[in-house]
Amino acid sequence: MTGAVGPARALCLGQGAPRWTDRDLAAECAVALSFDGTTHAVMMASPCDLEDFALGFALSEGIVAQPGEITQIEQIDHPQGIEMRMWLAAPRGARLAARRRAMAGPVGCGLCGLDSLAAAERALPPLPNGGLHLSPGDLAQAMKALRQAQSLHARTRATHGAGLWQPGAGLVCAREDVGRHNALDKLIGARARTGADLSGGVVVMTSRLSIELVQKAVLARAPVLAGASAPTARAVAAAQAAGLTLIGRLRGNTAEVYSHPARIGQTVRSAQDAG
Amino acid sequence: MTGAVGPARALCLGQGAPRWTDRDLAAECAVALSFDGTTHAVMMASPCDLEDFALGFALSEGIVAQPGEITQIEQIDHPQGIEMRMWLAAPRGARLAARRRAMAGPVGCGLCGLDSLAAAERALPPLPNGGLHLSPGDLAQAMKALRQAQSLHARTRATHGAGLWQPGAGLVCAREDVGRHNALDKLIGARARTGADLSGGVVVMTSRLSIELVQKAVLARAPVLAGASAPTARAVAAAQAAGLTLIGRLRGNTAEVYSHPARIGQTVRSAQDAG
Repeated sequence: MTGAVGPARALCLGQGAPRWTDRDLAAECAVALSFDGTTHAVMMASPCDLEDFALGFALSEGIVAQPGEITQIEQIDHPQGIEMRMWLAAPRGARLAARRRAMAGPVGCGLCGLDSLAAAERALPPLPNGGLHLSPGDLAQAMKALRQAQSLHARTRATHGAGLWQPGAGLVCAREDVGRHNALDKLIGARARTGADLSGGVVVMTSRLSIELVQKAVLARAPVLAGASAPTARAVAAAQAAGLTLIGRLRGNTAEVYSHPARIGQTVRSAQDAG
Repeated sequence: MTGAVGPARALCLGQGAPRWTDRDLAAECAVALSFDGTTHAVMMASPCDLEDFALGFALSEGIVAQPGEITQIEQIDHPQGIEMRMWLAAPRGARLAARRRAMAGPVGCGLCGLDSLAAAERALPPLPNGGLHLSPGDLAQAMKALRQAQSLHARTRATHGAGLWQPGAGLVCAREDVGRHNALDKLIGARARTGADLSGGVVVMTSRLSIELVQKAVLARAPVLAGASAPTARAVAAAQAAGLTLIGRLRGNTAEVYSHPARIGQTVRSAQDAG
């Protein structure tokens, strides 16, 4: 259960005669996240940086507002998977217990732990204006730095990456996971463990951008979220409402800005005025 | 809430001066799946082919074993999303109610509706040997046909596709969704509505291959599952145990076979003997 990579043999087709080749595959592990002794969620995840994942998940889900509200994180390896056991400071524990009692019924999937459609539209605290100015070249640098930091993906071709890139400092943190939501939660947790959030830089991701990634980024106070692929319509609407600069299709020197372009350099602000 | 595509304007960077361009984005919608009046899951999905999605989800989750066990599927559009309301034939309804009562506590995420780590390792009914023989050229044809059928992805660049390709018949069914798990559930449901499953062909997907996709494919009796990207280690282990031929990195004329290669042509079987 340790290690985020597992060996395999693959029969390779298409270049001359089929031949067997050794391949590294991404490990995938059931990770149970429990609070005060009750399982809150079971996620399939890459078994690395799991303390970051646990803390980031707790923050993204609003179970805690500060890392200090988790008094202890334990990792327990079971034959079937890994349990990340968190214990909450008293006021938070009581609040979670009340939230659980208020749930109307069992829910199995999708938006975490909330059993109504209304929950899909989480209220997001708006981001302050400004706070960061990036050039198109900064965006290209950020994605390039993330790609270079993806050691797990380089071996397995099966994981997503999430990184925080700051002007002047470069890529200050990056995390990987078989799930893009998990990768962002790990990044959020890794930063939170140092007392920091995602402000002051661009969050770059190798994936498409859905509304849940926008929600996590805004809650972690990221002013700019940029992804290699396209956003969904709902992600753009949520980013627009929360004051987040959302950038998609960031590849090489090209990118598309879908909301709040004022944070992306002087040239772009001129185009915005014209648009 | 209708339509799987939403319009947007994007500021395009990197090719001369920034300029505003119209873009189609993939819509993403909270879809609540309820059985006998109780919500079972809320998923973010592309709002198209939702009856296929509802039925496929019910089959993949083992809530029903046959389409006939769902007596009615209603679609109710709410301001916050869409509810797919399913009513179960009496024996199945009683079984689901018992399963709900047996759940130890509320669960919010990950593997659907099952709140233990053990649930991550679902018992899969093994597939029969053989049943299909494909050449490497068949695999290339299948993926090419799927790519051509992805009208939503062609417009939005943000959706995954799942298709069933059969020798002699070609691509008999394909579905798209912002989520790869949803795309496969839609394919399973679309086939089930015609009284068919996924046997007799290769299931091709545009995505990476995780264990949950293997589980869905095996339960729908697909003998071969092929994806454009790499599988996880756990997906390969589950495919090996269930008798599924798992193929990754299917691009152009190249592919890699990770389990049960005997279904892939005479040449490959010789290489297997040597390997």
